[in-house]
Amino acid sequence: MTVKNFTIQCPAPKASTDRIVMAHGGGGRMSQRLFEEIFRPAFANAALDARHDGALLALGGARLAFSTDSYVVRPLFFPGGNIGDLAVNGTANDLAMCGARPKYLSCGFILEEGLEIAKLQQVVETMRTAAEANGVELVTGDTKVVDRGKADALFINTAGIGVIEHPVSPTRIEAGDAIVVSGDLGRHGVAILSVREGLEFDSPIESDCAALWPQVERMFAEGIDVHCLRDLTRGGLSSALNELAAAAGFGMQVEENAIPVDAAVRGACEVLGLDPLYVANEGRFVAFVPARDAEAAARLLPGGAVVGAVTGEAAGRVWIQSRMGARRLLDMLSGEQLPRIC
Amino acid sequence: MTVKNFTIQCPAPKASTDRIVMAHGGGGRMSQRLFEEIFRPAFANAALDARHDGALLALGGARLAFSTDSYVVRPLFFPGGNIGDLAVNGTANDLAMCGARPKYLSCGFILEEGLEIAKLQQVVETMRTAAEANGVELVTGDTKVVDRGKADALFINTAGIGVIEHPVSPTRIEAGDAIVVSGDLGRHGVAILSVREGLEFDSPIESDCAALWPQVERMFAEGIDVHCLRDLTRGGLSSALNELAAAAGFGMQVEENAIPVDAAVRGACEVLGLDPLYVANEGRFVAFVPARDAEAAARLLPGGAVVGAVTGEAAGRVWIQSRMGARRLLDMLSGEQLPRIC
Repeated sequence: MTVKNFTIQCPAPKASTDRIVMAHGGGGRMSQRLFEEIFRPAFANAALDARHDGALLALGGARLAFSTDSYVVRPLFFPGGNIGDLAVNGTANDLAMCGARPKYLSCGFILEEGLEIAKLQQVVETMRTAAEANGVELVTGDTKVVDRGKADALFINTAGIGVIEHPVSPTRIEAGDAIVVSGDLGRHGVAILSVREGLEFDSPIESDCAALWPQVERMFAEGIDVHCLRDLTRGGLSSALNELAAAAGFGMQVEENAIPVDAAVRGACEVLGLDPLYVANEGRFVAFVPARDAEAAARLLPGGAVVGAVTGEAAGRVWIQSRMGARRLLDMLSGEQLPRIC
Repeated sequence: MTVKNFTIQCPAPKASTDRIVMAHGGGGRMSQRLFEEIFRPAFANAALDARHDGALLALGGARLAFSTDSYVVRPLFFPGGNIGDLAVNGTANDLAMCGARPKYLSCGFILEEGLEIAKLQQVVETMRTAAEANGVELVTGDTKVVDRGKADALFINTAGIGVIEHPVSPTRIEAGDAIVVSGDLGRHGVAILSVREGLEFDSPIESDCAALWPQVERMFAEGIDVHCLRDLTRGGLSSALNELAAAAGFGMQVEENAIPVDAAVRGACEVLGLDPLYVANEGRFVAFVPARDAEAAARLLPGGAVVGAVTGEAAGRVWIQSRMGARRLLDMLSGEQLPRIC
């Protein structure tokens, strides 16, 4: 009886496993569980099991990468970009993270009845520009229309094919590898959230949404033996490192002091109650390179910084040395931080 | 003044070109205009210009086909299938229509918050079965979740890569080619609409949703020099023939008597006010083959029938000889017949 009353007055948060919740799309622990429990058992195969940003395929003598993402970002237009360049850069970047030169994209539009065609045209124009920046061609596509109220103006799916130029993979991560980030963190998430929350800054924080292949290509061209790459999208740096530590079976340690975060982004994160290490980026990645190449890699990247190293201890876990000198576990994002960030 | 009053009382239907309407997704004339006015100018390239069911690509020595479709069918489950096998068969079939053996699929899920996970699991299980029937692997994917009311339970995008085994293309259509359909028409559209309208039949009409590559492969294996293939999805046989007549620059003539339509489907179409020649199918295609191979091709297909021929006259137009002997133009679907059929 007492227990019953207690339950009614103060229900424990039930792990809602019978219905989809927003956190299933957040890129954190719940997304991972959905993948492990629903998708992976059904489609089990080597490419999917590799947990790469894309599938690595051998086809008729070609070594290809293949990747897809759907884009449901809200709002459609935000400082520094819109759903169009996000959709082109996002998938092209996933190919780049496989060490592949992006070549071809497909594009599926789901349009809500009533969408202004001028807006669609603006999005498509941005996609054209982004495709040029990535050196990809949009070669095949599809358009569906759903009734008013059954979509949110516009969703875009892109899938991409790239040609692998250098072997990068979580399995190539080694103890002693340096961890290099390609630029300052948190801009995309803060740009989106500041629009949603109506925050105003002296100078608006723009999304970092960008084509990453040109940066990756520069490292390859300079002869850096990049072991692994991962873009820091949903779940941010923390989730990417945790996924890779688990996949590679190594520990990792990063130094909070070394991780570049712009002062304005840091300030906005404090106002919004966010941790920039968990905030999504759309034009930043982490590279694992031999220690001897760490400084060279950081110099080649527009805002590159060596932020830590792979260690032999505590396999699968990521540690962070804080500004104050304390060492703590840097955990994976467990729920959702920012829904519909991409 | 009079004109004004007249306008107010009896407005002429305005061609709504500033906003997306359902017909933009119907696969008919308005879909085509959207492609020609918005997408094609932005992304102009040879693969897109070919107006094939997929893009034909040469990559590292491999000759590949690449295609995509998003699926927004309503309801998610219907007699004979659900959105899952539709999404796998649909894209694999587009590859088969390029003369390509389907090899790999990507899959992007857009889930509405609140979707029952058991339903998702059922869909995914169907996808697994359909992937096996097509001989494809689902190698890469993505999941997004949108807030309740911002999607309709579940949208799926698939993109696929296939290896071309035989050159089929609208440019290979020749005057004198026979037009062969692979089976009876209209089942998918009628199956969907009968659920929506609550129609009941003695035995329910099931969707024809199926893997087409095995049928195509049989024709190739028997040495039939298939010139062109097209699946009869949105817009049905009429739209497919009109698109191909325009692309190939030939005329076509079909005999209404020769086109297989099941009696139950014909009856349902009469009740629903539909023309089976415009109704969507998800497991039927049209093949253009040399006249000498026409009967052999029809025999190799489960419900194959020779329904007409390519003519040298009236380039770009499709004629139909009716049951009553009259000859009339078979036009393209101009608006929408059945929204969200796939």
